[in-house]
Amino acid sequence: MNPRSLRQTGELRLLELLRDRFPPEKESIIIGIGDDAACLRPPDENLLITTDTMTEEIHFSMRYFTAYQVGYKLVVSNVSDIYAMNGEPLWAVVNITLPMDWDLERFEELLEGIQDASQKYGVSIVGGDLSTSISKATFSMSIVGTSKEEIVRRDGARTGDRLFVTGPLGEASMGHELLKRINRPIRIEASERLKLQISWDLIEPLLRRFLMPELVNPSVFAMKKNAMIDISDGLYIDLYRLCTESNVGARIYEERLPVTEQMRRVSEEFGIDLYRSVTSAGEDYQYLIASSDTPPEGLYYIGDIVDEGFSIIKSTGETEEITPEGYQHFADS
Amino acid sequence: MNPRSLRQTGELRLLELLRDRFPPEKESIIIGIGDDAACLRPPDENLLITTDTMTEEIHFSMRYFTAYQVGYKLVVSNVSDIYAMNGEPLWAVVNITLPMDWDLERFEELLEGIQDASQKYGVSIVGGDLSTSISKATFSMSIVGTSKEEIVRRDGARTGDRLFVTGPLGEASMGHELLKRINRPIRIEASERLKLQISWDLIEPLLRRFLMPELVNPSVFAMKKNAMIDISDGLYIDLYRLCTESNVGARIYEERLPVTEQMRRVSEEFGIDLYRSVTSAGEDYQYLIASSDTPPEGLYYIGDIVDEGFSIIKSTGETEEITPEGYQHFADS
Repeated sequence: MNPRSLRQTGELRLLELLRDRFPPEKESIIIGIGDDAACLRPPDENLLITTDTMTEEIHFSMRYFTAYQVGYKLVVSNVSDIYAMNGEPLWAVVNITLPMDWDLERFEELLEGIQDASQKYGVSIVGGDLSTSISKATFSMSIVGTSKEEIVRRDGARTGDRLFVTGPLGEASMGHELLKRINRPIRIEASERLKLQISWDLIEPLLRRFLMPELVNPSVFAMKKNAMIDISDGLYIDLYRLCTESNVGARIYEERLPVTEQMRRVSEEFGIDLYRSVTSAGEDYQYLIASSDTPPEGLYYIGDIVDEGFSIIKSTGETEEITPEGYQHFADS
Repeated sequence: MNPRSLRQTGELRLLELLRDRFPPEKESIIIGIGDDAACLRPPDENLLITTDTMTEEIHFSMRYFTAYQVGYKLVVSNVSDIYAMNGEPLWAVVNITLPMDWDLERFEELLEGIQDASQKYGVSIVGGDLSTSISKATFSMSIVGTSKEEIVRRDGARTGDRLFVTGPLGEASMGHELLKRINRPIRIEASERLKLQISWDLIEPLLRRFLMPELVNPSVFAMKKNAMIDISDGLYIDLYRLCTESNVGARIYEERLPVTEQMRRVSEEFGIDLYRSVTSAGEDYQYLIASSDTPPEGLYYIGDIVDEGFSIIKSTGETEEITPEGYQHFADS
């Protein structure tokens, strides 16, 4: 098939494609895509709203992302913020800004990624905006959700609370490092596997965590959560955020930080700094929870809330001060 | 003052600036900027949600926009979509993607423009997202509103309705043409005036319409509106959208299209195509309304809804077929 340029297609037709792909399925949607604004029946509970952007060469690169993966991850990163408040997503609007050299096939693939992730997480796309860019692609999504249970904020952690994470940290950053070396897109969404000097089963979970992360919904952990945040920029920086908002400090235990066998093997094989990946790299979309409750199965106890200061007890027994390092836009790193 | 780079400032501090500037003022805001998501008390009425993007060198250029104006216009273009549904804006989230060469002063100016327009139109900024771009700036906003009165869609126009606009069309595009020639930013927000060969009073309204358009709230026009759309891409293209959705056609009367004295004078002086500006250029943020009611003061009757076909009766008496021309992204023009 000869790739058809977006220029040949035109905005009116592209908007029709969006509209066809995202019909107003939920009962709460009175008007979906196609008017000046969507019209929605609000839930009885309070609303949650958040927004997230992915910019080319900062959050992703077409050198090693498929358009499907970009669309998929855009939805996941937004849903994650709703989950981090103990909420459930309802509706979303999406901003698509594309350079002219994208063709129709790639555009459709992007929509497919958005669609699959939206369906998986129960979000309805109710509006959007399409524009051209003279340089790189930028995607934003804004998502509205609600919470039937109590909303969990960042600022409720209290001295004596224990700190839990919902899974291993650092997988995404190691996947990213691997991808930079492989330097081509891998269609994991179509079960593509590569032949490498290392077993595919070792690296696949790391690539997947970076390209198409799946979220654990933290509301499945039945416990009173005093504070919660999604770890999108790295453990240390997001821990620092939670503690600063709560006006407390924290002590972390290195040996309690969950690390998978894959991470260990890959870090050795490829010379990737494991400690830095675990503590100071982002995009894992796991959750950091402060609670004084007995934790249910599936959570990892990694540290304690203290009155002040940030420290880590190393595996060697030494105590080290920790600084809020992680991904910050507009910062030298 | 030595301009301070965003790199020296860092994302955490920039987010604090956002948070300080947009405190949770409305009673409906339970959590504003600063957590994973904002938390809001929903109104009793249905919600409206829409989103709009401004990309550098497509929607604006820093060669002739101040950062203040970009921020201001971002809010206006979003509020306009809520007004076009007969709604009122409530809350918004904003996506700011900036190249590294923006300094702190320019960033603050952008926020000031967003703040002034938000206050003017009664929108509260409740969240946002800040990221770096390796190339150009991109800004998005998503806005939530509600309507105490009946929501007006695009698809309710019926044969026999009259078509009204809320003001002259083409001013913004003429302002744009002028700016391209002046080729520098003009701080109209600080009452800057330029000395040109033509009277400033003639061109100022045109520049203002393009740089910092002010909206007429169409709900002030007390009449039953069968269909409404904001004219953001040009009369013909937005008329075509309204009619296609309503499954009808339209007939426009050239001599009824409102044209100001400034537009006439400037089009002569600078050789700008007046007819094309009025019918096929965007960004005026006026409204096109189909109604069978007696119109109140302040509306301009420009045509009629017919069964099918699109035509204009020219001032000469001739009838011409019209095609949906106007601004389309991803289209040759």
